[in-house]
Amino acid sequence: MTETADPLVLFMPSGKRGRFPVGTTVLEAARSLGVYVESVCGGRATCGRCQIQVQEGHFAKHKISSSLDHISPVGARERRYAEVRTIPEGRRLSCSVQILGDLVVDVPQDTVVNAQVIRKAATDRLFDRNPAIQLCYVEVDEPDMHKPLGDLDRLNVMLEKDWGWKDILISQHLLPDVQKILRKGNWGVTAAIHRDLEGARPNLIALWPGLHNEAYGIACDIGSTTIAMHLVSLPSGRVIASSGTSNPQIRFGEDLMSRVSYVMMNPDGRDAMTKAVRQAVNELTVQVCHESGVDPNDILDAVFVANPIMHHLFLGIDPTELGQAPFALAVSGAVHTWSREIDLAINHGARVYLLPCIAGHVGADAAGATLSEGPHRQDKMMLLVDVGTNAEIVLGNRDRVVAASSPTGPAFEGAEISCGQRAAPGAIERVRIDPQTLEPKFRVIGVDHWSDEEGFAEEAEKTGITGICGSAIIEVVAEMFLSGIISEDGVVDGDMAARSPRILASGRTFSYLLHDGEQRITVTQNDVRAIQLAKAALYAGIKLLMEKQGVDTVDTIRFAGAFGSFIDPKYAMVLGLIPDCDLSEVKAVGNAAGTGALMALLNRDYRREIEETVRRIEKIETALEPKFQEHFVYAMALPNKVDSFPQLATVVTLPARKVPADGGEPGGRRRRRGRD
Amino acid sequence: MTETADPLVLFMPSGKRGRFPVGTTVLEAARSLGVYVESVCGGRATCGRCQIQVQEGHFAKHKISSSLDHISPVGARERRYAEVRTIPEGRRLSCSVQILGDLVVDVPQDTVVNAQVIRKAATDRLFDRNPAIQLCYVEVDEPDMHKPLGDLDRLNVMLEKDWGWKDILISQHLLPDVQKILRKGNWGVTAAIHRDLEGARPNLIALWPGLHNEAYGIACDIGSTTIAMHLVSLPSGRVIASSGTSNPQIRFGEDLMSRVSYVMMNPDGRDAMTKAVRQAVNELTVQVCHESGVDPNDILDAVFVANPIMHHLFLGIDPTELGQAPFALAVSGAVHTWSREIDLAINHGARVYLLPCIAGHVGADAAGATLSEGPHRQDKMMLLVDVGTNAEIVLGNRDRVVAASSPTGPAFEGAEISCGQRAAPGAIERVRIDPQTLEPKFRVIGVDHWSDEEGFAEEAEKTGITGICGSAIIEVVAEMFLSGIISEDGVVDGDMAARSPRILASGRTFSYLLHDGEQRITVTQNDVRAIQLAKAALYAGIKLLMEKQGVDTVDTIRFAGAFGSFIDPKYAMVLGLIPDCDLSEVKAVGNAAGTGALMALLNRDYRREIEETVRRIEKIETALEPKFQEHFVYAMALPNKVDSFPQLATVVTLPARKVPADGGEPGGRRRRRGRD
Repeated sequence: MTETADPLVLFMPSGKRGRFPVGTTVLEAARSLGVYVESVCGGRATCGRCQIQVQEGHFAKHKISSSLDHISPVGARERRYAEVRTIPEGRRLSCSVQILGDLVVDVPQDTVVNAQVIRKAATDRLFDRNPAIQLCYVEVDEPDMHKPLGDLDRLNVMLEKDWGWKDILISQHLLPDVQKILRKGNWGVTAAIHRDLEGARPNLIALWPGLHNEAYGIACDIGSTTIAMHLVSLPSGRVIASSGTSNPQIRFGEDLMSRVSYVMMNPDGRDAMTKAVRQAVNELTVQVCHESGVDPNDILDAVFVANPIMHHLFLGIDPTELGQAPFALAVSGAVHTWSREIDLAINHGARVYLLPCIAGHVGADAAGATLSEGPHRQDKMMLLVDVGTNAEIVLGNRDRVVAASSPTGPAFEGAEISCGQRAAPGAIERVRIDPQTLEPKFRVIGVDHWSDEEGFAEEAEKTGITGICGSAIIEVVAEMFLSGIISEDGVVDGDMAARSPRILASGRTFSYLLHDGEQRITVTQNDVRAIQLAKAALYAGIKLLMEKQGVDTVDTIRFAGAFGSFIDPKYAMVLGLIPDCDLSEVKAVGNAAGTGALMALLNRDYRREIEETVRRIEKIETALEPKFQEHFVYAMALPNKVDSFPQLATVVTLPARKVPADGGEPGGRRRRRGRD
Repeated sequence: MTETADPLVLFMPSGKRGRFPVGTTVLEAARSLGVYVESVCGGRATCGRCQIQVQEGHFAKHKISSSLDHISPVGARERRYAEVRTIPEGRRLSCSVQILGDLVVDVPQDTVVNAQVIRKAATDRLFDRNPAIQLCYVEVDEPDMHKPLGDLDRLNVMLEKDWGWKDILISQHLLPDVQKILRKGNWGVTAAIHRDLEGARPNLIALWPGLHNEAYGIACDIGSTTIAMHLVSLPSGRVIASSGTSNPQIRFGEDLMSRVSYVMMNPDGRDAMTKAVRQAVNELTVQVCHESGVDPNDILDAVFVANPIMHHLFLGIDPTELGQAPFALAVSGAVHTWSREIDLAINHGARVYLLPCIAGHVGADAAGATLSEGPHRQDKMMLLVDVGTNAEIVLGNRDRVVAASSPTGPAFEGAEISCGQRAAPGAIERVRIDPQTLEPKFRVIGVDHWSDEEGFAEEAEKTGITGICGSAIIEVVAEMFLSGIISEDGVVDGDMAARSPRILASGRTFSYLLHDGEQRITVTQNDVRAIQLAKAALYAGIKLLMEKQGVDTVDTIRFAGAFGSFIDPKYAMVLGLIPDCDLSEVKAVGNAAGTGALMALLNRDYRREIEETVRRIEKIETALEPKFQEHFVYAMALPNKVDSFPQLATVVTLPARKVPADGGEPGGRRRRRGRD
């Protein structure tokens, strides 16, 4: 610390630094550098949100000697706070700490003020925070007959003076309560301000008497079959609870197109489905709130992602246009609205944000997954696949991103498979087939052992062995292929019946007997065909995007969604769902769409980022691409009639490829550039 | 027209002028100069809103020779328009008229496109227009699978391209209808855009298939006893209908304070009164729409003025705080909200604007009257008085404006007068007393003759003679004073009983018998006292404001409100309700508050003007001013114990002033400067 220069302060983990006059508070310093340090009480040392920790030692890299002597000692205000609430060892309230010398300051990402039950982390990732909601405590002047400004107007004066908010608009529903709240708080109140878009007027959306130290948000992915939700503390950024529920619209139709049909056939169909999905969201909100002891009234912001049809139904829009060419979305851009406009059972003034949709079949969920995985933020060519009834596919890097959907149908979800079932206790979830004996071993959900291990039988009695779930379908077909039970063309080889009693004739085709118990579980020729059709559609879509990008290979692959979380990437590649790639670069990322919603909830900059990215994404309509059919036909073969999988071949012994009947070069390159 | 310079175009009545290249349309020229010419169709010659008229002749003052040869002839588009609708002789559609030479162009203020019944003009004044609502016809690209922008997003593209609207926010309730409307209009639609505050994002609030050529607004004054409404065509600025209804809250209490009491005493009182006033506004809306054949759904903007208690109750705010010191308004600034938030039965997306309130007893109605009469726009010292249960008083000029309210009580409305009644057939409305005989003559509402004229008796049989209305109370007391029946101190002189049988003893005081028929109509000593108390309160408030301004006289006086419309300024001055002034400068301006609302409806610049003016207005709380009591005591005398009325004395012979008992100088100046 020199006599001439102001003290140097470095904030971690952001790395932002600056010099500040002695006596500046650490909070002021952080703010002036744009380091996000939350504060609700506005520097009164009552909210406890602005905790920081000073690192001691000499930081040669930064040329800073940081010491606890370089900050002001604990004063009366901090002592008072510590008496009322606990403050972790080493932590200080940055609003009450003055800079006396050079400092390295840690801004903790997990400041917990109210004890909350954390069920599970939605993600290990930490996101920079810049939420659209800010809590601002102010002390308002009492009414004065000489200056008859209204109570609200005097509140606004303080919100501008203490917090810099100008030209605040108030939600109409608060007007009747302003006076009561001000008096109840003895003129000290906490205002929740919403400002999403730069330049838009800030909105006063909620108001509490006294210091109100907590506000929550929900991030929600409305899928066709499942609705998943995170409940988040907005000031701390912590995920408080995460939960899911099944989409009650299933009663109107299992898949999306049957729900569109329901709307077209029933005059009140759209309304019934809108009510159903909103009610499910509300019930899920009650559930996550109940689990964590949060008042739904404290939820002030909500971000949603959904596929286009769910997106439209949730907003009360008839999805009929999405069921027919040209698949016109009513709205593709981001939607900003209010909880009360769509009947959400959260704070009446809460805001709602829906990520933009990419195209008629590539929804806000794909936008969420894109935001989460960030192909547009990196140099590698990333393939992002979200498999559902429609597969949503995004391919790109920093330079260019393309997207498409492909009609995979419900086979991957086990719906068109003879012994398929949802992932539930009793469902087979893992399969291995001995290539010599053709004997299988498998694992069952709810049972700890493989089927060939001791103790399996007893345990399985409890669950039963009831069917094959989606992930195991992939494995069993891939293992059948690897063990030679089915050919490259997907034909169950009847000649094998001589080698194993598990190959069963069934009319003119053959099946594989996976389990013979109370229920007989077989994989039929039709099952294999269904998987072939689904994976060929997915792969053909991916190939179209690779052609648009002018690439023969992708650098990294992300499987989003529940399906992706359970399948083994290796088997997905053996079947040729995805192109060849270093297996270590193939990752399941879970509900990436939900993670994207979470990011947009915690930081409005991510909203701008995905809006801008979606504007730039080039959309490919697979139905309009003449080459789709050709790619599809090649992709019916296992793993593919023309594309080779050299990286996969280093870890898996693929059956020798036969010379195709149509004269295609085995393993040869038949690539053509896309037309554009 | 020279070869070198572009043609010169002068627009009247604005006087704006500029040079434009040959071939520029007159509409483009007007827009580039900021001359308000409406256009809904965006220059397609289908809406007919952009009519202008070219003046022919040499305009020496402007050095312009304007000729019909200097515009392009009627082309196919204008002919087509004229075939479908009529266009007045001489008028052209400015979007289809090209400038060929120098022009003087009249922009008519009364362009009527749809035939509408005009009941009565709300005002003779013409206001510059700049409404917050604009209708914009656009033709939207059809959906394209290659560019999967949503239907709404493509609509927004055209609204930006054709009309310059950027970053439009759509009202949530429209989302479900966008696709239907676009297809019904075969991709041609009219959007209603709301933009009030500069810098705020424009809002898409309504959408119609095809060209929708009309949008309406309502301007409404919610008074304690009466609600008055104008229905206005926003594109043309014409008032289509005006009507009024009584405020149904009267059943909760005649005057404002009794309504506040009702709220305090009844748990559901506030809610009941809010519902009552909103329902009355809705019924009045239906009525003005029915009279003029307008669909309430076409009402897109609504501006309200009201006294503070009505303002609060209308917005659903408990007015209890306004009933007790410090008379704190919940909100004093302008309120921006939506029709659906306050249950108005107009378009679901319609906007609502309430003018700011000035103080706890000086409401948005006083702000409206101020906007209408404009003391802040002129050099003269203007006194603006709106008499109700509370008199709202504004005094000022360009330099400084001050305002106060004074508790006049309901006497001016006839409520505390023994034979007082509302203005209705049968009520005495004009009175003269012969100073010699003390015999009265009077006029009765619904009767065409004075009571001493032939034919009066027969006519009056139909109506009866039932009481004295507010305006006649002023006249009869003033005439009693002028004829010597009451003294300067307001005492009915019992000695006069010897001169006339109309002076009747009544206990220890005397009355004046105005009419002896089926009903005996007298003016009692108590009646005179009630008027004295009311007028003294008003005058004392005015005096306080004059002291604040440091003036002894005012230059011009405006009486706003129904009371002001019916009283004779001369009698008001004889009684000393208002200070001495040139009688030709005392004007009744009717419902100036409603006119102010109308101005704010037609031109959002007026909203900014009154918001800024109200911020500047200095508010005087009469209850806090020590001198109020003194002014009040002096003002109990007729016309005043200390102030002289020299200008009044030139037209009326005032009774000789007696030397006051307390030694005050008759007619002397006892002015002191206000303390500030």
